[in-house]
Amino acid sequence: MLREIEVALGDRSYPILIGEGLLESRCEPLRELAEGRQVAIVTNPTVAALYLGPLRAQVETVAAGLIDVQLPDGEEYKTWESLNRIFDALLEARFDRRSLVIALGGGVIGDMAGFAAAVYQRGIDFVQVPTTLLAQVDSSVGGKTAVNHPAGKNMIGAFHQPRLVLADVGSLRSLPPREIAAGLAEMLKHGAIADPAYLESLERDMASLVACEPAAMIAAVARSCEIKSAVVAADEREGGLRAILNFGHTFGHAIEAGLGYGQWLHGEAVGAGMVMAAELSVRLDLLGASGRDRLLAAIAAAGLPVAGPDWPVARYLELMQVDKKAEQGVPKFVLLEDLGRAVVRRAPEAEVAASIAAHIG
Amino acid sequence: MLREIEVALGDRSYPILIGEGLLESRCEPLRELAEGRQVAIVTNPTVAALYLGPLRAQVETVAAGLIDVQLPDGEEYKTWESLNRIFDALLEARFDRRSLVIALGGGVIGDMAGFAAAVYQRGIDFVQVPTTLLAQVDSSVGGKTAVNHPAGKNMIGAFHQPRLVLADVGSLRSLPPREIAAGLAEMLKHGAIADPAYLESLERDMASLVACEPAAMIAAVARSCEIKSAVVAADEREGGLRAILNFGHTFGHAIEAGLGYGQWLHGEAVGAGMVMAAELSVRLDLLGASGRDRLLAAIAAAGLPVAGPDWPVARYLELMQVDKKAEQGVPKFVLLEDLGRAVVRRAPEAEVAASIAAHIG
Repeated sequence: MLREIEVALGDRSYPILIGEGLLESRCEPLRELAEGRQVAIVTNPTVAALYLGPLRAQVETVAAGLIDVQLPDGEEYKTWESLNRIFDALLEARFDRRSLVIALGGGVIGDMAGFAAAVYQRGIDFVQVPTTLLAQVDSSVGGKTAVNHPAGKNMIGAFHQPRLVLADVGSLRSLPPREIAAGLAEMLKHGAIADPAYLESLERDMASLVACEPAAMIAAVARSCEIKSAVVAADEREGGLRAILNFGHTFGHAIEAGLGYGQWLHGEAVGAGMVMAAELSVRLDLLGASGRDRLLAAIAAAGLPVAGPDWPVARYLELMQVDKKAEQGVPKFVLLEDLGRAVVRRAPEAEVAASIAAHIG
Repeated sequence: MLREIEVALGDRSYPILIGEGLLESRCEPLRELAEGRQVAIVTNPTVAALYLGPLRAQVETVAAGLIDVQLPDGEEYKTWESLNRIFDALLEARFDRRSLVIALGGGVIGDMAGFAAAVYQRGIDFVQVPTTLLAQVDSSVGGKTAVNHPAGKNMIGAFHQPRLVLADVGSLRSLPPREIAAGLAEMLKHGAIADPAYLESLERDMASLVACEPAAMIAAVARSCEIKSAVVAADEREGGLRAILNFGHTFGHAIEAGLGYGQWLHGEAVGAGMVMAAELSVRLDLLGASGRDRLLAAIAAAGLPVAGPDWPVARYLELMQVDKKAEQGVPKFVLLEDLGRAVVRRAPEAEVAASIAAHIG
């Protein structure tokens, strides 16, 4: 089974191929892109041990040159210093503006390799080969690339669309269960904001998805990519609609920032964040209590936290002030009008505080 | 006299206003852009002493917040570290995605402030207020932003169009003569590649331009901006035509890289580079010897060097290999078919070498 989703962005459109064993078999779209070009595979040592060999073998017979750049693993290395190691390698190998960067790894590698491609000689092509579930359903769709700054996550970055995404669900079986759960958080989010039928299918297939069964996983990854692609195509640069993809993220980013990056996985913070956002939706009379409870149960079934760290509410509020979705210091929230339908609006601070207090500890 | 040139780039179109005294008088288009937003003026101490006060006074009554960031002066500071000082200041002041950056200064300030705006929270608006002639006719048109890397100039950057450019020719009178000459180099380039009548007017008015007489300068800056705008509008991301703006630059960048940045001004290197490129055009039977001689005389009349540093030719060739206009290691050259008409093509290394040898020392 091979699914292909087209992300429709005019002359920046690109396909996402989703299947099992893509990394080991010959992938013609990838080989066509690499043909005659200098190619750099950016990855980390953990992923390299598993997949760098097969990917190199596919590319090296057609590329004009092939290097790999291995960066240390983890969100705490999503920095300018790591980015500079990519630039150093590209420049040392005299890569020109026709070169191609392939990001092989999770969201951290994709964000850094994508941002490096966005700004190397003012922009070169790149391909995403996401090997984590989170990256397959989230960070590989939409062209958001970035590095962190000590003052905030993803503060420095660019919109830069890949030319091709290869999502091999076979690579998910090597992941620890926490990382599968973190990906499921974003998939639940897609259902919650845009597609009640998809949310139901996730609830129904949750055991198969937690076990990474290929058929269920390919179908769900494809549906998540379709939903995210449709939102991104309608609003490439986050003018409006795309904001709904931040459901759970205003709270989630506060958790990540407060803990220091790398303590909770992004998807885990989003899991607890979605519970808080659903709570806020209930308190503002947008969503029924049963909708909140159903979402909370699905988040728990995926193996995700349903409560944030036990901090004073004031600490959450302070952390949310610097979130980049804030405008002039007043945060906006993505809320649910129903399961499957999202809206963006400001909320009274008292209700925000109460929603946090109800789901910590 | 106030001239307005529109750079036509669809939804990224913007106006360039060219006049005398724009910084001191009330500029409504600038105030409209700054209205209700957080604004950061990025400049250097030299320029700040002259123009920061008047610019602040214009903006601060309408902006929601106003900070300035003063960076050290000079190409050697066009680095990631300087860029990071902008990010630190924006983050400390909690600037959000609706914020506005104003670049007040020469090309180095414009490139850094523009690149900071391109990647801060994945892109915010910016305004260019170029205070050098080079910046007014060159770097403020076209959206190219960048910082340097130890391995090469402008290796890390982005295409990011300003929302408005304010070119006050009054600010040119505080410049040293070398910097006026450096700007005239790019203006001669515009004539040489695209407009024989403009080239003639520059030859005729050279004494007035060297003396920064406002009427002559406004007319010439406007014509240069028109030519560059037309080329950029036809080829925003340097797919083809825009390459002609690199006339003199393949040689010029080699000179800059070999000397270390900041020894010669960019325009000085382009001056000598244009002589070499004209020589190569003659050797390839594209341009008559009289065309080369006329261009050389105009470059000399502007006060620019007409020969490169006295290095072995092999050193030039080596330095040109890493130039970013090279594809797969084979440099392309912008050549003249006639004064006012440019073409891009590869050239035999022997002719390149002979063209360099004829104009060094």
